[in-house]
Amino acid sequence: MTMTKPFVMGIDIGGTNTVFGIVDARGHVVASDSIKTRKHTNFEDYIKELHEGAERLIKLNDAEGKIQGIGIGAPNANYFTGEILNPPNLPWGKVIPLAETVSKAFGGIPVAITNDANAAALGEMTYGAARGLKDFIMITLGTGVGSGIVVNGQLVYGHDGFAGELGHVIMKRNNGRVCGCGRTGCLEAYCSATGVARTAREFLEIRTEPSLLRNIALEDITSKDVYDAAMAGDMIAKEVFEYTGKILGEAIADMICFSSPQAIVLFGGLAKSGDLLLRPLQESLEANIFPAFKGKTQVILSELKESDAAVLGASALGWEAKYRYEAPTVPVVTENA
Amino acid sequence: MTMTKPFVMGIDIGGTNTVFGIVDARGHVVASDSIKTRKHTNFEDYIKELHEGAERLIKLNDAEGKIQGIGIGAPNANYFTGEILNPPNLPWGKVIPLAETVSKAFGGIPVAITNDANAAALGEMTYGAARGLKDFIMITLGTGVGSGIVVNGQLVYGHDGFAGELGHVIMKRNNGRVCGCGRTGCLEAYCSATGVARTAREFLEIRTEPSLLRNIALEDITSKDVYDAAMAGDMIAKEVFEYTGKILGEAIADMICFSSPQAIVLFGGLAKSGDLLLRPLQESLEANIFPAFKGKTQVILSELKESDAAVLGASALGWEAKYRYEAPTVPVVTENA
Repeated sequence: MTMTKPFVMGIDIGGTNTVFGIVDARGHVVASDSIKTRKHTNFEDYIKELHEGAERLIKLNDAEGKIQGIGIGAPNANYFTGEILNPPNLPWGKVIPLAETVSKAFGGIPVAITNDANAAALGEMTYGAARGLKDFIMITLGTGVGSGIVVNGQLVYGHDGFAGELGHVIMKRNNGRVCGCGRTGCLEAYCSATGVARTAREFLEIRTEPSLLRNIALEDITSKDVYDAAMAGDMIAKEVFEYTGKILGEAIADMICFSSPQAIVLFGGLAKSGDLLLRPLQESLEANIFPAFKGKTQVILSELKESDAAVLGASALGWEAKYRYEAPTVPVVTENA
Repeated sequence: MTMTKPFVMGIDIGGTNTVFGIVDARGHVVASDSIKTRKHTNFEDYIKELHEGAERLIKLNDAEGKIQGIGIGAPNANYFTGEILNPPNLPWGKVIPLAETVSKAFGGIPVAITNDANAAALGEMTYGAARGLKDFIMITLGTGVGSGIVVNGQLVYGHDGFAGELGHVIMKRNNGRVCGCGRTGCLEAYCSATGVARTAREFLEIRTEPSLLRNIALEDITSKDVYDAAMAGDMIAKEVFEYTGKILGEAIADMICFSSPQAIVLFGGLAKSGDLLLRPLQESLEANIFPAFKGKTQVILSELKESDAAVLGASALGWEAKYRYEAPTVPVVTENA
């Protein structure tokens, strides 16, 4: 009799740390650990250290032979090919055969990979605020703006595995800010943590009112500084959030025209700004939404603990992982046939 | 032995005409006919005439008992509820129980309904330019701009059945044109046939160059007039198409960020403008597309004959139709129990 194995492993590969954990079917992170992502310039060495750390965790938690699959979230990871393509912050080349190498290192355990925002959406659907929802959009408001789109209960991968780049829809067609992608006016240039800091700098330069933020060197201002100042009642800082929420509300109104989701789930540092961001966002959404969709889509916050979310999201992919490394069969050469 | 029935019926309910036809599995319209949509203010009378016309067609073509399902495309038709909700141009009230009434009239043949742009997308996927594609977006450029989105081989209905309103994403956030939906700056206000005529009027008022279009009263100019003038070499008319194509290219670049489709399929009157529209559209798309998607999505034209397309699109839904009217069971009352 084959029993379904009770655990998956979730691995989140970030630019700085790689966090990995054992997760059970209820979305409890049984145990987790991390290694430095950029310590090894050789990819095989990195996977070796990752595998050793994971095996240690597996042994300590009596999970040997009980890992059903491994799910990995990583920047530019492609669900279809199992590869990371042109990652901006990883030192292992332009095409990294992630699924194959990990499955091989772990003795053939099935592996599935996707990008971090897609993993976050799966985590939210499997264990978090989007449980039971078949149509929702996850927006991650971090250093950048990422997105994972779920339609009819399935993650939208697109024909090439790279769908869901909603951080790069154009919000300002004239005189827009330069974005990291090389274009101008992208949502990400305004509604990411970086975008909030940029807006603050712009406001401080253009305007003359006093502000707590003037105590910080312009180039050192972070979104956290803007948040702290706004919470202390600073007018300019509050208006930075008004501006950010307005643009995000406009963007969400357009997204709803696409897939008419039940919910927009916000995740990441900025999502924790509370009403500073959510009130202007809601007002802008209501002012901009297509009439037939009015009042139908809820904007909600992620319910996953931030420290667990990345591993949980990645792990959610592990339950359905199908790619399994198989050693190539070596042809038997008999000299005297 | 149950044989799959070889035909479906496609019904396209437009504001003026209702066209219905018998379609075979290869997408051949075996026979079709039409009635006036608005002749009857009573919905039951309309369905009665439709049913009589359809039955006549069925008898003439020896298709009795061979209709597997009925697919209907209609404005604001909801796939999930089987109802038409708040239709702008139909005289039968705010909530029209279309699927139920039709299935009842046709003796319980299964019925499925959706809006016209979704039907067009299904038609293209089943019989047209999108055969074999699992991820594409159909954009209908008619009086308005409609869209039908296919993700992973499935039409995107959204949680409420109304997804795919890409004619109403906002393209001009400042000083945008008033749209029929009550908001301003929608794609539809620029890139529909009506939008092209509006652009021509705007250009003629603002500018002083001579133009063939100045021979037509400003309020009478149609997109066809603009097309004819452009084909005759008229500079202002050509620039109207440049402007239209530029905005449509910008919009498509954003759509690709959502679902990374293999193709954008254009349909409708404007789609037949050839390079007048397609060249500026392609240039704008290439200038605006997110780098990771560059060169991956093709813009192609519908392959369905315009006279057949609406019926074919609707009919495509008929093959999978599931809703079937069943007469309510009348409780048997026996007086002496």
